[in-house]
Amino acid sequence: MNQKLNQVATWMKDHDIDVSFLTSSENVFYISSFFSDPHERLLGLAIFQEEAPFLVCPKMEIEDAKNAGWTGEIVGYSDIENPWELVHNAISKRITNVKKVAIEKEHMNVERYEALTKLFPNAAFASAEEKLRKLRMVKSAEELAFIKEACALADFAIETGCAEIAEGKSELEVLAAIEYELKKKGVNEMSFSTMVLTGKNGASPHGTPGSTKIQKGDLVLFDLGVVWKGYCSDITRTVAFGDINDKQKEIYDTVLKAQLAAVEASKPGVKASEVDLTARKIIADAGYGDFFPHRLGHGLGVSVHEYPSLTETNDLLLEEGMVYTIEPGIYVPNVAGVRIEDDLVLTAKGAETLTKFPKELQIIK
Amino acid sequence: MNQKLNQVATWMKDHDIDVSFLTSSENVFYISSFFSDPHERLLGLAIFQEEAPFLVCPKMEIEDAKNAGWTGEIVGYSDIENPWELVHNAISKRITNVKKVAIEKEHMNVERYEALTKLFPNAAFASAEEKLRKLRMVKSAEELAFIKEACALADFAIETGCAEIAEGKSELEVLAAIEYELKKKGVNEMSFSTMVLTGKNGASPHGTPGSTKIQKGDLVLFDLGVVWKGYCSDITRTVAFGDINDKQKEIYDTVLKAQLAAVEASKPGVKASEVDLTARKIIADAGYGDFFPHRLGHGLGVSVHEYPSLTETNDLLLEEGMVYTIEPGIYVPNVAGVRIEDDLVLTAKGAETLTKFPKELQIIK
Repeated sequence: MNQKLNQVATWMKDHDIDVSFLTSSENVFYISSFFSDPHERLLGLAIFQEEAPFLVCPKMEIEDAKNAGWTGEIVGYSDIENPWELVHNAISKRITNVKKVAIEKEHMNVERYEALTKLFPNAAFASAEEKLRKLRMVKSAEELAFIKEACALADFAIETGCAEIAEGKSELEVLAAIEYELKKKGVNEMSFSTMVLTGKNGASPHGTPGSTKIQKGDLVLFDLGVVWKGYCSDITRTVAFGDINDKQKEIYDTVLKAQLAAVEASKPGVKASEVDLTARKIIADAGYGDFFPHRLGHGLGVSVHEYPSLTETNDLLLEEGMVYTIEPGIYVPNVAGVRIEDDLVLTAKGAETLTKFPKELQIIK
Repeated sequence: MNQKLNQVATWMKDHDIDVSFLTSSENVFYISSFFSDPHERLLGLAIFQEEAPFLVCPKMEIEDAKNAGWTGEIVGYSDIENPWELVHNAISKRITNVKKVAIEKEHMNVERYEALTKLFPNAAFASAEEKLRKLRMVKSAEELAFIKEACALADFAIETGCAEIAEGKSELEVLAAIEYELKKKGVNEMSFSTMVLTGKNGASPHGTPGSTKIQKGDLVLFDLGVVWKGYCSDITRTVAFGDINDKQKEIYDTVLKAQLAAVEASKPGVKASEVDLTARKIIADAGYGDFFPHRLGHGLGVSVHEYPSLTETNDLLLEEGMVYTIEPGIYVPNVAGVRIEDDLVLTAKGAETLTKFPKELQIIK
């Protein structure tokens, strides 16, 4: 059993859970190293207190699971077999009298839940998510190495985007060039839909890139990330195209000051809320409190948004090995939108920034 | 009430359903014209037999919903409000004594289901999916217009891919060029991960594009689609780079013959299975029966895979207005993979093909 399996098994013993049946691609990958997204087909990882775990997946993916490094039992099913019967048999071979099953309640759908409750009519169903979130929050050395590679690719993407900026080019053209260069480097998945927003469009925190053309005097906002070996990066940079006015400059400087202060405040033992409030106070003191409408940051790893969440009310204590974003922003409608986001890992000494593209205002001529 | 709402309400009366609470982005869009994917946040559309429907979404999306054309009530919630309480209040204002609720059991997760069952402890929960699938199967004129535009963009993508093929270029480079040109045309979402597979890689029906370089004598397989105004296209073409051998040619000709025959066999009143078997028999008679491991096709619309499913066992009768793919393939490991896929709409006279890129073998020099 690998270490992650051991950690789950220990938690199960503490909570009298007989079986944990994980079904999200992310959690199955996190524990088994096998990533699969079989859409409407069932993917599952069953974990027990003492007995050997097993994976359940479509038959045509069995070889992929082995190649990914899964050495335990694999229950494969064809499209004409009922996978739930096979799951039931595989569990029954290991334990009888199942009284408590942990599932991912935010992932499993009602149809599958009804199938499971029929198989185990006397069982109670607990949530496995809280435990998995906590496990995933602190990264191993191997995970960190993958995230660093993903971050280096994100830096490259911002460099590419800056080089593409030119008078009259549209947001989508710049975006397309970035993804083109990433694909040539072997990236086949982005962490989320890439954002390139120029001028007033940048003032919407959830804007969609379109045919708006970049003009001199615009601030251009990039928010993007890549998935690399199963791990995500997430970076935001805002750059100037030509000269910008004093108001734009003031907003940029305020966001940068807040971002740097929050990175500096990140240390093991500090509350997440304290880091958020460090940035929030700087922005509020500069008179932009109403224009910073989102949390300061979020954990990232297998998912681009995971624990911890850095909000002004989350009093979770930060720990060594956590990887998260710090991304304050100011969005003044019809004036400017600026966000600066880094990914960082917490070490004993403080934050180590993993995204390295410069944060001093870059002026593209 | 629009026509789709009327159809749902009629079905609800027939099945004594008091409330339908739809939660998938696709079904909410289908009925309300408002597309939103608020991830972990709740999106919902509540429909009643007689009373006015309402939409529930994050507060910051209310304007988007109105702009999308939703004129009914919108229940918006902030991140510190409990949306379920608001849903309960909005339902209670309309009806009391809720005995039966229809939900999307394959979409709603257990956590939300538990929240709903607490709000309506005496209600039974039925599945809304079967009805929605049937409604979505037959397209309106407006839906068809959007799909045709999406298909024209898919044709353009194949043309672009063919123009990019060159000795030593990798699959990912060609793929990147296709998506780059689509983005310049304003496409910001593909129906699924674009596939460009060359040589032996094409012999895996679920291959992943990578750094394999295209060589003379390869068959290059493209499978892609775009999302346009909320509707999907899905096309596959296989082209030759330089001269191919007799075996590759024989496989291509067999797939093409099967594809054309299945398009020809598509008529209102014919069983879906009959269309599948028309193609399957041609492939089996040519000795390749074991190398066509998937169904013949699938419906498409708001989702890239929806009803009907064209399998050898689905005896559903085809109807005018259905839109679906016909995509036979032959995959001989280490020899060749060929798939040819069109999207088509069923008219009174038969199939009208919506993807127009030529199907006779294209030889790129």
